[in-house]
Amino acid sequence: MPSIDLNSDVGESFGIWTFGDDAAIIASVSSINVACGFHAGDPSTIRATCAAAATARVTVGAHPGYRDLSGFGRRFIEMNAVDLSNDVVYQVGAMQALARAAGTEVRYVKPHGALYNAIVHHPEQALAVVEAVLAVDPSLPVMVLPNSEIERAARAAGLRTVAEGFADRAYNPDGTLVSRRLPGAVLHSVAAVTEQVLRLAGDHQVLAIDGTLIDMEVESICLHGDTPDSVVLAAAVRSAIVGSGITIESFV
Amino acid sequence: MPSIDLNSDVGESFGIWTFGDDAAIIASVSSINVACGFHAGDPSTIRATCAAAATARVTVGAHPGYRDLSGFGRRFIEMNAVDLSNDVVYQVGAMQALARAAGTEVRYVKPHGALYNAIVHHPEQALAVVEAVLAVDPSLPVMVLPNSEIERAARAAGLRTVAEGFADRAYNPDGTLVSRRLPGAVLHSVAAVTEQVLRLAGDHQVLAIDGTLIDMEVESICLHGDTPDSVVLAAAVRSAIVGSGITIESFV
Amino acid sequence: MPSIDLNSDVGESFGIWTFGDDAAIIASVSSINVACGFHAGDPSTIRATCAAAATARVTVGAHPGYRDLSGFGRRFIEMNAVDLSNDVVYQVGAMQALARAAGTEVRYVKPHGALYNAIVHHPEQALAVVEAVLAVDPSLPVMVLPNSEIERAARAAGLRTVAEGFADRAYNPDGTLVSRRLPGAVLHSVAAVTEQVLRLAGDHQVLAIDGTLIDMEVESICLHGDTPDSVVLAAAVRSAIVGSGITIESFV
Amino acid sequence: MPSIDLNSDVGESFGIWTFGDDAAIIASVSSINVACGFHAGDPSTIRATCAAAATARVTVGAHPGYRDLSGFGRRFIEMNAVDLSNDVVYQVGAMQALARAAGTEVRYVKPHGALYNAIVHHPEQALAVVEAVLAVDPSLPVMVLPNSEIERAARAAGLRTVAEGFADRAYNPDGTLVSRRLPGAVLHSVAAVTEQVLRLAGDHQVLAIDGTLIDMEVESICLHGDTPDSVVLAAAVRSAIVGSGITIESFV
Repeated sequence: MPSIDLNSDVGESFGIWTFGDDAAIIASVSSINVACGFHAGDPSTIRATCAAAATARVTVGAHPGYRDLSGFGRRFIEMNAVDLSNDVVYQVGAMQALARAAGTEVRYVKPHGALYNAIVHHPEQALAVVEAVLAVDPSLPVMVLPNSEIERAARAAGLRTVAEGFADRAYNPDGTLVSRRLPGAVLHSVAAVTEQVLRLAGDHQVLAIDGTLIDMEVESICLHGDTPDSVVLAAAVRSAIVGSGITIESFV
Repeated sequence: MPSIDLNSDVGESFGIWTFGDDAAIIASVSSINVACGFHAGDPSTIRATCAAAATARVTVGAHPGYRDLSGFGRRFIEMNAVDLSNDVVYQVGAMQALARAAGTEVRYVKPHGALYNAIVHHPEQALAVVEAVLAVDPSLPVMVLPNSEIERAARAAGLRTVAEGFADRAYNPDGTLVSRRLPGAVLHSVAAVTEQVLRLAGDHQVLAIDGTLIDMEVESICLHGDTPDSVVLAAAVRSAIVGSGITIESFV
Repeated sequence: MPSIDLNSDVGESFGIWTFGDDAAIIASVSSINVACGFHAGDPSTIRATCAAAATARVTVGAHPGYRDLSGFGRRFIEMNAVDLSNDVVYQVGAMQALARAAGTEVRYVKPHGALYNAIVHHPEQALAVVEAVLAVDPSLPVMVLPNSEIERAARAAGLRTVAEGFADRAYNPDGTLVSRRLPGAVLHSVAAVTEQVLRLAGDHQVLAIDGTLIDMEVESICLHGDTPDSVVLAAAVRSAIVGSGITIESFV
Repeated sequence: MPSIDLNSDVGESFGIWTFGDDAAIIASVSSINVACGFHAGDPSTIRATCAAAATARVTVGAHPGYRDLSGFGRRFIEMNAVDLSNDVVYQVGAMQALARAAGTEVRYVKPHGALYNAIVHHPEQALAVVEAVLAVDPSLPVMVLPNSEIERAARAAGLRTVAEGFADRAYNPDGTLVSRRLPGAVLHSVAAVTEQVLRLAGDHQVLAIDGTLIDMEVESICLHGDTPDSVVLAAAVRSAIVGSGITIESFV
């Protein structure tokens, strides 16, 4: 019986500021990427998020980002590799302790935001992330964009990689994501998103923006959860997948 | 053969800012309290400090503080217990990962600065620290001022406590420290400090500020390392202890 | 014709995190207390908030707090007076530049959260705030709780003070606020809040929690704006005041 | 009688961490670039630095940087122009208030570190800085690298620019700085630095790294002050200039 993992970013509140509807998202996905405090996520939020995941039997991943609260980790920072690597070790270690305190544990690492985007093509920063994961626990998989620098670097270092697709992002015919600056980069309708998810999960393919069908092997599909619409979308995606006979379950 | 542990705060640099002479201190003590990032200590500094400790075979402790870089953790913050506890879990977890990455591990917890002072008498914050250590690893000892709230709370929770004395602080006849606001609170001469250390380590006593000799059982003695003078003092204390036939070694 | 000022805290978003419905609040009040970046309020939020106030012809005040983003300035910090004073100068100066850039200017200072509460009774911190305002601009009024340390210190230094009452807080018979830890401390119903506001604005009195009517001279009344309910309440208060023939206008 | 301004970065301590020997530098230069809190410089440091400048009759400039304490503002951040502009307004405004509190005032703006380098060639960030200065005070000059984006953008907006040269940096024959990654990029000897300074101040020329003499019109020369050597160098430069009959004085 075929299966797929659904992942989403959560735990991105900070102090009195809340962000997203984590409870609703946790009810729809099989894996959560929990902010680690540098771009979002205070310790109490992290622990409560992990506790909710433990109750819901959802897999917990560490979601480290650049140290940039005011930019939410969405701005590229030209860091040296040593400091970046240690910033990631620090964040994942902090998450591990809070996850254990909440009765669960960190089972994978997925970098956040601008760091995620940078390590698609930035060899030094990709290697810095790989070295951080090796230093923390070489058995932790890294969730990656297929055919990225981070995927190559992680595999070369012997780390397991988990390729992910995006439910609501348009693809170029070469398998890269259509830039957000271009029209059509983001799918908005439930129908379009559901169709893409079913094709990714069921056929291991994606319909590129030019109409070509391309192969796309992914173990996980990323859903967004930061708007009311996206929560509705996540629930619709879950229903469609379950209805098509595919099991939603974590890759670990 | 009698033995005593010497501990000191290190790893308190941050980014380009350096603080103290960690290499000199690590050469004089048997245990180091490493800043965890909230009051001082960026991840690269923490890791390098742990690596130096690993090379020198010095025991590493986590030294969590209030989240207060601009105040260096020296200002009391009236936090709720849940947030304080999670802040401590976060810091100790981050330290654990960096210590392991550096080839060593966190073997005890000693709160820093204003938090250290608060939990001498503040039951809620003391309990918050205890709950953090229980959540991270109940086998980790907590280094404490004798007869403090934190000592009572830690023991009541089944944690091992390590009582510490101070090489350069004057004591009241009831065994508490003379307030820094009073004259004579800090011992400055090598002779006075060395005498106090030898009495603490050899006789388990201290000469109070009024001239009475009082009992003071400690497993560790805290040295300061943030000034050129204190580095000289630390080396002198080490020599005096070794010369008196007492072994300097960690309590773990 | 009698008049009263209504004030509320705004500009408390930070980066991607939003807080409160500033547009709705600005439509109901005559003065806004704008967060200055230390407890909340990034520079773009501050400027946009000031621009909205300029358009609505609402008076802008600086709302400095402790440097504590993760605690939203709601936790007392035992700071020394010099650093506190300079932290306030820094925040008010930053606000002045952003307010001018937005076509308005800072017309008063109202400390935030735990700092507001501390300077009701803490002479050193009250004096630190006074010295900050003197250093920035001695013509700036300070908004205060009546009969507080800050009111005394500000007046002694020659600063204008603006006494404020609270729309939704119960009062003790001695004119102090009922502690939030006690039942009945906060008024929730539109009727109760409106009655208190009309009595404060019209009769310069308040009905204490024990049923006694006491005198209470205030130039401004503070409304909260951080929940959907409070926005509705603010609009109801505005209507009731206008309906009673009292003008809502700033004290400057 | 010819004159030249000497400038240096100061006020870069933070909390308990000190950086550089500001007193020695203030004794050697005519203008200081004071850190504004985002990359370095807590409010008490800023104010004390301004007070020292007031006493020494040295001109004070605001030295805003990226919001990056852990990277000291030395890491490029890919910020959007609106947020960058408002971050600069915020920092300059804060500095203005602290400078006035210290009996002096902000007389120019010189961006710091990675921001300084970015706006040499990054049109959006250069424009963001220009718009910030226009918003704060269009009479404030901006200190710039000659022939940079920021110089063009500032002049186009009607701002006065102050071109600066570097005492200890090697120049390419086209007038740009030799990259720090290349050998010979930094001049270390007192003789070489002094020679370059005298040529810049006296002849408005510089000897490029390939031996060609090129024209270089500057109103100010930047000295570094963050090492013991650089403090000695600054004093030597001052002596050499004074000895050659050129007056050291600010451009404002």
